[in-house]
Amino acid sequence: MNNNKVLHYYILSDSIGETAQKVAKASFAQFPNVTTVSHKYTFISNHETLQSILEDANEHDGLVFMTIADAELAKFAEKYCIKTGLICYNLIQPFTLEIARRLETEPSAISGAQYELSEDYFDRIRAMEFCLAYDDGKDPKGLREAEIVILGISRTGKTPLSMYLGTLGYKVANLPLIPEKEVTPILYEIDPKKIIGLTNSSAVINKHRESRMKEYGIGTGSKYASKTRVNEELEYAHKIYEELGCPIINVSDRSIEESASIVMEVMNLPQRI
Amino acid sequence: MNNNKVLHYYILSDSIGETAQKVAKASFAQFPNVTTVSHKYTFISNHETLQSILEDANEHDGLVFMTIADAELAKFAEKYCIKTGLICYNLIQPFTLEIARRLETEPSAISGAQYELSEDYFDRIRAMEFCLAYDDGKDPKGLREAEIVILGISRTGKTPLSMYLGTLGYKVANLPLIPEKEVTPILYEIDPKKIIGLTNSSAVINKHRESRMKEYGIGTGSKYASKTRVNEELEYAHKIYEELGCPIINVSDRSIEESASIVMEVMNLPQRI
Repeated sequence: MNNNKVLHYYILSDSIGETAQKVAKASFAQFPNVTTVSHKYTFISNHETLQSILEDANEHDGLVFMTIADAELAKFAEKYCIKTGLICYNLIQPFTLEIARRLETEPSAISGAQYELSEDYFDRIRAMEFCLAYDDGKDPKGLREAEIVILGISRTGKTPLSMYLGTLGYKVANLPLIPEKEVTPILYEIDPKKIIGLTNSSAVINKHRESRMKEYGIGTGSKYASKTRVNEELEYAHKIYEELGCPIINVSDRSIEESASIVMEVMNLPQRI
Repeated sequence: MNNNKVLHYYILSDSIGETAQKVAKASFAQFPNVTTVSHKYTFISNHETLQSILEDANEHDGLVFMTIADAELAKFAEKYCIKTGLICYNLIQPFTLEIARRLETEPSAISGAQYELSEDYFDRIRAMEFCLAYDDGKDPKGLREAEIVILGISRTGKTPLSMYLGTLGYKVANLPLIPEKEVTPILYEIDPKKIIGLTNSSAVINKHRESRMKEYGIGTGSKYASKTRVNEELEYAHKIYEELGCPIINVSDRSIEESASIVMEVMNLPQRI
């Protein structure tokens, strides 16, 4: 591998460039040792701006990840790339052209159309506020109204997973499981199909807890971060999961996005945003 | 436009399909009246599964949005599509091939490589927990440690914006501005460059507040949702923004993603995830 090579890449969008950024990230993730320089240009709305960006990209021999809804601007970029050999793909265009052909219509050419505000917007805000209000067992009444109830012992990642699912539009309540604290009876009244029990290997939980203790300025050797204690808590959690008959997700080695995707699959939840 | 046509689309991925989903969403957003049926297949790992999905897609004349890192599987899909005429684009492949050529190396072919766990993972969890701990002015001490401080009157969307920025890895604290309540002096001690003042048109805030009052079972006519009160609060907020010399973002008609993108641009923050 040519390790000295630095690759420039360009995110070009007539909206916020989120889609192009995702594709760039997924592409470069295939090359863990690559050194990149990123350039991001959003809300591009005219030929002059677009041309000067493309010229800059060409000078750096950049890779261009583009989402441009305006057909004129898209064609302009395409022509420039054919002429110069600049590598540039308009990521949505192959699809929008095909959809237009099938529907016998034209695309709206509205940039950022996926972010249009609607009732969904308010629903999503309500979901995020819900997750915040019912985080960490703050109020057991939330368990009834929640679409997803997440259970787990300390440091299994309940809060980040709930918050992330909140940004996707789901009302999540999460509840910590602590052997010394009886769980609320409401847990046994609600539909177990909306409950998810998180688990992880005791070694990973241990590591998370030790790192947290370090943040708090507490050295190793606390009961909270001991292996015996973690195993005891995990055993308790699994006993509860069994009683409830809820699905269990092992979050070990999984990113927040991956865990969220598994929750949605297990619960058969439709994509909201 | 052919309004009776229903389009099937397929999200195919050897990971969670988040990138392909984004491209599909952006593409279909260009056709506001289209009726679609979505099919999502994630963690695809072998030829048999892939073939049966492609056959199903072909039967429905579907559009296939694909991100497959494994070269063998990708080639298999490509061959199938050439043979059958199925519309399918592997969204990352044009780029991974070009990057491989330039670096004189092979892609790792690890699915979901962008979700690899690392120190970033812990930083992100810490950021999300930070946003939660310092939401809604809960603890003014958070203003010092925060990377972004968001100010605004009630119903300007401080909480959802903070939570979303948290999932992107930024430590955000937000503080409500209320004319009757003096702001913490800490606000004047921190760098105004990390402060963002949110604003919106009084008509929109009014609407949000009325809808909130309705949720609480309170009819129209409350002082909180009155135009005079909203204008008075907005005036107060802008006075504070001016004193601080902080940038102001008007979130009117902007989605959470768009507002977050503008915050990052105004503050010149690097992409974290």
